[in-house]
Amino acid sequence: MTKWVYNFGGEKTEGRADMRYLLGGKGANLAEMSSLGLPVPSGFTITTEVCTHYYQNEKNYPAALKDQVTQALALLEADMGMNFGDPLNPLLISVRSGARVSMPGMMDTVLNLGLNDETVEGLAKKSGDERFAWDSYRRFIQMYGDVVLGVPHHDFEDILERHKTDENLKQDTDITPEGWKSIVADYKTLVKNELNKPFPMDPQEQLWGAIGAVFSSWMVPRAVAYRHIHDISADWGTAVNVQSMVFGNMGENCATGVAFTRDPATGENYFYGEYLINAQGEDVVAGIRTPQSLTTKGKEKEGSTLPAMEEIMPAVFKQLDEIRHKLEGHYSDMQDIEFTVQQGKLYMLQTRTGKRTTAAALKIAVDMVAENVISQEEALCRVEPQSLDQLLHPTLDPMAHKTVLTKGLPASPGAACGVIVFSADEAEKQGNQGIKVILCRRETSPEDIHGMHAAVGILTTRGGMTSHAAVVARGMGRACVAGAGSIQMDYDHQLLRIGDTTVKAGELLTIDGSTGEVMLGEVPTVQPQLSENFSTIMGWADAHRRMVVRANAETQKDAETACRFGAEGIGLCRTEHMFFDPDRIQNVREMIIASSAPYRRDVLEKLLPAQRGDFIQLFEIMKGLPVTIRLLDPPLHEFLPHTDEDIQQFAKAAGIDEAQIRLRLSALHESNPMLGHRGCRLGITFPEIYEMQVQAILEAALKVGGVTPEIMIPLIATKAEFDIMKKLVDDKAAEVFEDKGEKVDYLVGTMIELPRAALTANQIAEQAEFFSFGTNDLTQTTLGLSRDDSANFMPDYLYHGVFEKDPFATLDIEGVGQLVEIAAEKGRKTRPDIKLGICGEHGGDPASITFCEQVGLDYVSCSPYRVPIARLAAAQACIRKNARGRLGKSKENKEKKAA
Amino acid sequence: MTKWVYNFGGEKTEGRADMRYLLGGKGANLAEMSSLGLPVPSGFTITTEVCTHYYQNEKNYPAALKDQVTQALALLEADMGMNFGDPLNPLLISVRSGARVSMPGMMDTVLNLGLNDETVEGLAKKSGDERFAWDSYRRFIQMYGDVVLGVPHHDFEDILERHKTDENLKQDTDITPEGWKSIVADYKTLVKNELNKPFPMDPQEQLWGAIGAVFSSWMVPRAVAYRHIHDISADWGTAVNVQSMVFGNMGENCATGVAFTRDPATGENYFYGEYLINAQGEDVVAGIRTPQSLTTKGKEKEGSTLPAMEEIMPAVFKQLDEIRHKLEGHYSDMQDIEFTVQQGKLYMLQTRTGKRTTAAALKIAVDMVAENVISQEEALCRVEPQSLDQLLHPTLDPMAHKTVLTKGLPASPGAACGVIVFSADEAEKQGNQGIKVILCRRETSPEDIHGMHAAVGILTTRGGMTSHAAVVARGMGRACVAGAGSIQMDYDHQLLRIGDTTVKAGELLTIDGSTGEVMLGEVPTVQPQLSENFSTIMGWADAHRRMVVRANAETQKDAETACRFGAEGIGLCRTEHMFFDPDRIQNVREMIIASSAPYRRDVLEKLLPAQRGDFIQLFEIMKGLPVTIRLLDPPLHEFLPHTDEDIQQFAKAAGIDEAQIRLRLSALHESNPMLGHRGCRLGITFPEIYEMQVQAILEAALKVGGVTPEIMIPLIATKAEFDIMKKLVDDKAAEVFEDKGEKVDYLVGTMIELPRAALTANQIAEQAEFFSFGTNDLTQTTLGLSRDDSANFMPDYLYHGVFEKDPFATLDIEGVGQLVEIAAEKGRKTRPDIKLGICGEHGGDPASITFCEQVGLDYVSCSPYRVPIARLAAAQACIRKNARGRLGKSKENKEKKAA
Repeated sequence: MTKWVYNFGGEKTEGRADMRYLLGGKGANLAEMSSLGLPVPSGFTITTEVCTHYYQNEKNYPAALKDQVTQALALLEADMGMNFGDPLNPLLISVRSGARVSMPGMMDTVLNLGLNDETVEGLAKKSGDERFAWDSYRRFIQMYGDVVLGVPHHDFEDILERHKTDENLKQDTDITPEGWKSIVADYKTLVKNELNKPFPMDPQEQLWGAIGAVFSSWMVPRAVAYRHIHDISADWGTAVNVQSMVFGNMGENCATGVAFTRDPATGENYFYGEYLINAQGEDVVAGIRTPQSLTTKGKEKEGSTLPAMEEIMPAVFKQLDEIRHKLEGHYSDMQDIEFTVQQGKLYMLQTRTGKRTTAAALKIAVDMVAENVISQEEALCRVEPQSLDQLLHPTLDPMAHKTVLTKGLPASPGAACGVIVFSADEAEKQGNQGIKVILCRRETSPEDIHGMHAAVGILTTRGGMTSHAAVVARGMGRACVAGAGSIQMDYDHQLLRIGDTTVKAGELLTIDGSTGEVMLGEVPTVQPQLSENFSTIMGWADAHRRMVVRANAETQKDAETACRFGAEGIGLCRTEHMFFDPDRIQNVREMIIASSAPYRRDVLEKLLPAQRGDFIQLFEIMKGLPVTIRLLDPPLHEFLPHTDEDIQQFAKAAGIDEAQIRLRLSALHESNPMLGHRGCRLGITFPEIYEMQVQAILEAALKVGGVTPEIMIPLIATKAEFDIMKKLVDDKAAEVFEDKGEKVDYLVGTMIELPRAALTANQIAEQAEFFSFGTNDLTQTTLGLSRDDSANFMPDYLYHGVFEKDPFATLDIEGVGQLVEIAAEKGRKTRPDIKLGICGEHGGDPASITFCEQVGLDYVSCSPYRVPIARLAAAQACIRKNARGRLGKSKENKEKKAA
Repeated sequence: MTKWVYNFGGEKTEGRADMRYLLGGKGANLAEMSSLGLPVPSGFTITTEVCTHYYQNEKNYPAALKDQVTQALALLEADMGMNFGDPLNPLLISVRSGARVSMPGMMDTVLNLGLNDETVEGLAKKSGDERFAWDSYRRFIQMYGDVVLGVPHHDFEDILERHKTDENLKQDTDITPEGWKSIVADYKTLVKNELNKPFPMDPQEQLWGAIGAVFSSWMVPRAVAYRHIHDISADWGTAVNVQSMVFGNMGENCATGVAFTRDPATGENYFYGEYLINAQGEDVVAGIRTPQSLTTKGKEKEGSTLPAMEEIMPAVFKQLDEIRHKLEGHYSDMQDIEFTVQQGKLYMLQTRTGKRTTAAALKIAVDMVAENVISQEEALCRVEPQSLDQLLHPTLDPMAHKTVLTKGLPASPGAACGVIVFSADEAEKQGNQGIKVILCRRETSPEDIHGMHAAVGILTTRGGMTSHAAVVARGMGRACVAGAGSIQMDYDHQLLRIGDTTVKAGELLTIDGSTGEVMLGEVPTVQPQLSENFSTIMGWADAHRRMVVRANAETQKDAETACRFGAEGIGLCRTEHMFFDPDRIQNVREMIIASSAPYRRDVLEKLLPAQRGDFIQLFEIMKGLPVTIRLLDPPLHEFLPHTDEDIQQFAKAAGIDEAQIRLRLSALHESNPMLGHRGCRLGITFPEIYEMQVQAILEAALKVGGVTPEIMIPLIATKAEFDIMKKLVDDKAAEVFEDKGEKVDYLVGTMIELPRAALTANQIAEQAEFFSFGTNDLTQTTLGLSRDDSANFMPDYLYHGVFEKDPFATLDIEGVGQLVEIAAEKGRKTRPDIKLGICGEHGGDPASITFCEQVGLDYVSCSPYRVPIARLAAAQACIRKNARGRLGKSKENKEKKAA
């Protein structure tokens, strides 16, 4: 028969910390603390499986549950020497939710359960404190009435307030026992009037009511929303913890408090926490009185005059401090604990791993290794890679006041404040004058690059996490909020509207690219400092990872940033970005307008020295590290002038008839440029462009020396395309080597960014020496989802759970990942030593990096500012994979022995 | 040792008809005829493998070839009782190419080889005809000089013409033996002057020169181009046939001719052919004299007065007629034969399966079954499915003169002539007045449907075989030439330009959608007539196919056409097409502009009766046959007004501010609409639209009765999307059934048109009851190829052989097909009885249908005019699969017995 109920407390404890999925975090840790011999009030946990059963069976409990609860309750009574509902010696209990992971404040709790008109008298007698007993009773009615019976909380508060007003009392503590009795009577009347039946006096009815309320609270909208935000599955369910009550509010020798075993803000190793004398846990949270520091050190740090627990309850404090060490030692991690002192006796009510800032996480991890508490591997797994972003970019001053106007997508981390401009040219102009500007656009295009570079932040109203604005901003390390759809950009009147608010060009705006918030005026920001702990962790990460981490970079600045952050090469140099330089765009445009190959060749001749110079610079910065260069990829019309003014200007400079240019523009227009004439399709129709690029790359490599360029062909769908392009590269290389009288090694490989390429990777690998998974485009094609257009419905998709995460931010492993696996397997079958990497935006996403390690890619490549994240994530993925490998092996060995 | 040379003629014949791959078609059939005991001049065939070897080894022959040729030549000399190069008794030979399939006129031939200054005298003596000998010699020098030595053909012709002028002669036959001798001398001088060396006198040198010329001709541009057009692989290579010469020009008892065993134009079973007395084969082809009919029947039919062979060479004719029956009986198919009569003796020089018109193909197939020559299965495989198109659409009168201006893509078959209009509205206006119009647009959009309907033909300058224009035109049975890129449409001046030619609105234009030709003025067309043979073949096809054939149709006319052509249901009813009706578009637009769901519901209420009416009509026409209805698929902005005028008009009618509409238009604009907010994404964000459609479908089904609608959800990428949509359909269905008090069965399934859906088909099939492969979009996404934009580079791609065929016309089996297979397999694993079909354009393409049969799909669905093609192709695929199955089984049995 299924065991639905697990006891805890003393020797009858049945659970363990590692049974979190079954018992919830709270229940599992209560059991664990009991087993450790810590003073935990006894109780029992109804498992999460009951919750699952409840929702799968039209809110009915498993048949055996009733009996199992009855037995557990009997055991609890025996253990406590009290009886549930006994008028003379009543056992009081708390009923609390407890999911696999903490969902603070999301679900319901009922305290003091078991009180009724009879047992309240027993409690009064037994405690010798009538006021305490009736206060507890009214707290119970209020909590139960609200949580279980659905009587509005404020109706109870109204009664309490009215009583205080009538009696002219200021604080709850001023209310007399008789006062509480009268309030209880009013509470009961309220409930009866609201529900047309009296408040339940039967403790069993109370118990099952509370259990039902906890399970029901799993599906209330705020819990659903919370789960959605925090990636918690509804299937997990919650457990219910039924525990004997202890009271921190039975007098001056009572207390209640919460603590962290180390400082969660800095990571400093001292006992950090607060407590209240003569109070129940909820009072600490409610902030009715100012909590006091546990330690004298804390008291000093906060400049408080209230006495520390260390001072006024030294014995209990000593016991608590010992437990602090014991728990941290046992869990090998910083703990967040709750305790109550009842008449001088300490009780532990909760322990869990404590949340901490990134800085604290790094310090705690490094310290704990030094203290021999954890290994380097464990330390590495303690730091959330994504959280490193906090350390690399300016952040909003957490103390500052802010007026949030709206929220867009957190497209590129960091906070930035500047004056609003509405065009790239204006951004550049003001930027050159040293003015900090926020470039505000509906969307950005490659023509805006100079303005993005000159801006401190970018705000767009369209496009998603991998829109042009987002990708470029991340690459440059600029803060960016993208797809803020509630903003209307009015270029004509040089202003933007958010609801009723209008903000004009020149006014100050602050954006937080880590949260997506857009704020009016200036919110001060704090510059990042890379700590020694950061370097230590990064060093360990490098020692523990298998995958190489490269950066996506093409400019001098990007490449230098990448090197500073520890990139071990360039995984994606997008040559088209080199074409937007104001000095070159005219030539590029003339080349595109050129209708014949010979004329195109003439113009390309002019571009060659500049392009060669780009590569020389890049190779010099990268000092022999591998550099993968992608030949021209985007549709040609991206380079062309689009506004009337631009067209006229270009026509004049080029000496070409304006009408002819417009004709060419219209011929180049595409319905779906993403699926259009781009990538290797350009290489096949205009081979002279790729030839020029290959020449520039190889001549640069010859000049700098010590570099093996990796030439990458984009948008390959078929082996035939790749073979044609490979031949083009090899022929041009032979020509360059002949001409220069010397050679360099080079590789020719391809992006795998179309489903067909993945499916036929075995064929393509016959000639291709490396694959780089272009998972941005592979996501677009596999899902049939334009990254530029998905913002319109992505919120609905995330809300409905169609995607757990935006597939442009975290790799869709079931779909896109399946193709990556297929391609890796097929590619290796043909060419066992083929070099495999990823250069889409996913290369900087920890979950995606874990997948890359599982598939066994050789490297990941990401934007420069994500390099540290990728280094850590790659190390974690490797450590976890090895751990699983070891587990698997030991399991295997066991099975072998058994056989 | 590899056998490179195969003898034929009499008893030493080594080849067979089924060795076509090795010996080429001509060589294999010469061997076969020899074995049948027919009079074939002896010779030998150098295999196609020599050709392959030649090109794989830098144009060197296999080492053993020389000896094998020498041996074969010796055998030939012995057989003929003549010696190669013998001045007294010279053996003369022909050297001819012969590939696996016939490539008429593409490669080179040399006749009369072995002649030189000495052997010509021997020939003169032996034949007793000096004029014949020297004429043969000059023919040889001219042919060899041109083909092998590269001396321009016209230089020889010039000498001949000069001689005739000098001598004042009119015809070649007037030239005396001395005249020919003098011409031979001039020819030799010409060669010597051109090449700086004399014409080769050594017969061995002549022989190897000719062999080399034949192999070289395999790679000349015209042969490469021909192969490209006819899907012939360069790897196949050509064979070389060396055969002893026979002469049809040795006197009045000599003749030469070509014949078909049945009439290739009509299929009528009579001996059809022509011959010339005292002539060589090339004279028939060159048309120097009017050829005469073989039979008196032929003579009568052609109204000729020249005597039939039947009349003047009755004995030889009788022998030939016997051979005709023997060959047709042996090959079980109509044959195309060549023969020569040398001094009263008949020689067979060639037999091959004869080309025929579609009408003839049908008649011959049906007749041969009646004659018990072939089975129904064989008859079905004799007709090229695609060729049925000729019978279904008007065709150009083959006798008419035509001025071809340019060529576009043959996007929808049939020929059409009409006056040029440049807008859909104008097309409709003139069409309503009974004027035949050709709608000329850069591209078409759903807004042009009414104009396309009103036009007899559609011409576009952009877009490919599956562009909007092409797809809609095929569906309507309108002729369409798409992507004619050399045409410039000038809407402003209401004219189009092709090179220097300008054609104005109102002028006549003819287009041929079967060839892509665009012609000036009116070219008369011929209306199709469906013959009894057509019905017979279709009936057999239906009996022999496994797959069901449905049609893609949504209008009354389409559905009726589909039924007339034998469709067994509708595989794709595109509901959006129903929204473009002028009566409805205003409501549709208001619905889209509506910013709130309640308002949208109000407008949808107005659309409901119309949509329900559509389905009632469709269900009634289809009389209980299955109908698959796809819910709204395209991006909403496709429905919106785009021109200023339209926008103003709409705003006025709707009573909405014009600025607001423009704002909404700009919000709905997408960078890549193909990958944008469409398909089920609309269903998820605007569920009320799909709810209205489901209600309309089910209410219509209830009203008509006896129909099981198949509701199809478009653009599914994930199981979650499908589950949400399935629930929407089921919930709405429950509501409708509750409301109406009755129920109908219905199915809910999905398009598989995204790679991710194919890859996760096992998950989707948990809820989906059928899959329809939308291979148009699946091709776009798998290959990352926009069908609307691919015209820019597709010609280059086909030229470079990246694609063998346009992947939008014929399924890319390696890539897209792989996904179809994966999805079929995964879908069936979850749901063994899942219904699988295809509804992309490939559903009407024979090669793709063969693939569908192999994968085991349940049905194909195509545009109404392609239904007969699909029925036949499905039957062929089934017959061939079964044949392979039987072969496989018999092979298996053999192996079993052997074991």
